[in-house]
Amino acid sequence: MEDVPAEAPEHCPGTQSESAGKVSACQGCPNQLICSSGAARGPDPGIELVRKRMESVKYKILILSGKGGVGKSTFTSLLARGLAAADSDRNVAILDIDICGPSVPRVMGVLGEQVHQSGSGWSPVYVEDNLSVMSIGFLLSSPDDAIIWRGPKKNGMIRQFLSEVDWGVLDYLVIDTPPGTSDEHLSAAQYLLSAGLTGAIILTTPHEVALLDVRKEIDFCRKVNIPLLGVVENMAAFVCPKCKTETAIFPANTGGATKMAEELGVPFLGSLPLDSRLARSCDEGTNFLIDVPDSPMTVAFNKLLTDVVKACEESRNN
Amino acid sequence: MEDVPAEAPEHCPGTQSESAGKVSACQGCPNQLICSSGAARGPDPGIELVRKRMESVKYKILILSGKGGVGKSTFTSLLARGLAAADSDRNVAILDIDICGPSVPRVMGVLGEQVHQSGSGWSPVYVEDNLSVMSIGFLLSSPDDAIIWRGPKKNGMIRQFLSEVDWGVLDYLVIDTPPGTSDEHLSAAQYLLSAGLTGAIILTTPHEVALLDVRKEIDFCRKVNIPLLGVVENMAAFVCPKCKTETAIFPANTGGATKMAEELGVPFLGSLPLDSRLARSCDEGTNFLIDVPDSPMTVAFNKLLTDVVKACEESRNN
Repeated sequence: MEDVPAEAPEHCPGTQSESAGKVSACQGCPNQLICSSGAARGPDPGIELVRKRMESVKYKILILSGKGGVGKSTFTSLLARGLAAADSDRNVAILDIDICGPSVPRVMGVLGEQVHQSGSGWSPVYVEDNLSVMSIGFLLSSPDDAIIWRGPKKNGMIRQFLSEVDWGVLDYLVIDTPPGTSDEHLSAAQYLLSAGLTGAIILTTPHEVALLDVRKEIDFCRKVNIPLLGVVENMAAFVCPKCKTETAIFPANTGGATKMAEELGVPFLGSLPLDSRLARSCDEGTNFLIDVPDSPMTVAFNKLLTDVVKACEESRNN
Repeated sequence: MEDVPAEAPEHCPGTQSESAGKVSACQGCPNQLICSSGAARGPDPGIELVRKRMESVKYKILILSGKGGVGKSTFTSLLARGLAAADSDRNVAILDIDICGPSVPRVMGVLGEQVHQSGSGWSPVYVEDNLSVMSIGFLLSSPDDAIIWRGPKKNGMIRQFLSEVDWGVLDYLVIDTPPGTSDEHLSAAQYLLSAGLTGAIILTTPHEVALLDVRKEIDFCRKVNIPLLGVVENMAAFVCPKCKTETAIFPANTGGATKMAEELGVPFLGSLPLDSRLARSCDEGTNFLIDVPDSPMTVAFNKLLTDVVKACEESRNN
């Protein structure tokens, strides 16, 4: 893991390097003086900043997946909405660290909102009194703008999000990530592991091409010591709205997520069916759990929610 | 774009830097001598290597998407299989640069194959006499291993793939990418633009959450000067196998990809329906176009294939 600060120039030699503050890349960097003095040659100060900020957050949950498009942002939004709705005294927030493809503002119905800065940090955008959101989507001048950033810039942004957002006291912080096992995931792990990360929930669809990537994600979590809360299988079956025939759109040819979780010794949290009304609800940024309470999706989700809360509480007691 | 070589240490100051070869990070780097001598302070030698290797490749097509899980690898495999099947004198290859989630080996039915090295480079894996594949998936000791790489390492791998694979003479090279607009995309653009990149095909699903990311991807292509061959809408409608009722699983609430392509002035190449037999075929690594010739998916795809060939030929004539 790196010691390149958030605002580092492209070829930053790293604050731990003997040449810190002394090479040509350092010219013009705001940290040049500190680095050349040698004062920065301690651990990444970001880790301590994140640890301090996260002291007022009880449960910190990473939502991961190997493959893209399995429903991470949708699940993140349902989880946060469900947690917040179940208890109005419970404070919940979403942090979206999918820097290049931030979907959370749209899914949560707060696209186009602005973030304000105060002495205590960036204020998140509030969806409900007890439900707030932070995403790079709020910092763009147009939602169509591409964020063409290589790793170090994304890592810097994630550090800022984790250390400089004024969440207040939170019960749950749900962190939506991009697919894969690269910069964003390493940075989140690096900062959150020393700040008491509760664990990760890994999302997948039932077919083997998705499971292949999920196994990699589980391997990643084990290698970097991220606790696993469990696996959720999404888009498990589609029920025809007319004839009620159930079709597996992404068929579980190899036994699906249940079997994979069992083989790898990871808790299986549940299976969620596919409901086309959910995609519509995400596009419109409305609360599916309230809009379509009788959907098989809502029923399955509410059961799963109880299990997630239980898994979080148990991880705290361990 | 960076001048960090493929095999660079983590804090490589860059071959163009005045401190190249001279800082602590350079110790032990095989390029230290060349760098400190100043000989490396020219343009990235990788660009020239890629240009040379790509001289024998007629059409180079990037398959992009903003969002993950919209079917890039599936489309890549169908496109390559379709191009190769239509003309046995046509040589086609797939390069998979989704470093952290390589799905192509499984989808093409060559999971577990090995790559051999000869004097002329890495030999790709052959699926048919005129259809070959290269992917990082072939280089892993287990398909479950996570590839936990930050940007610079991924970029180095992509450069090697583009410059060191012995494809022979190719008519079409179809390049599958991860979702987003970050390291992999910048590196591919950097190397391929000076090697005569034909253009990009952008995949999406019809709902607004996906289109939001596609607009970013189009913005990215325009900013880095990647020619756009067109947009393909995937998973457009699902036909119940029992009652034949059509359901939009990802409803086009905002007019879908057709309207978006029109608004942004990008060619619209076609719309492909959702067929659950396709996911199964991908899991099994078989050729869907031959297995299920009467699927609405196959019919729509064959029409689209003709348009892609036409778009490629036209781009060459321009």
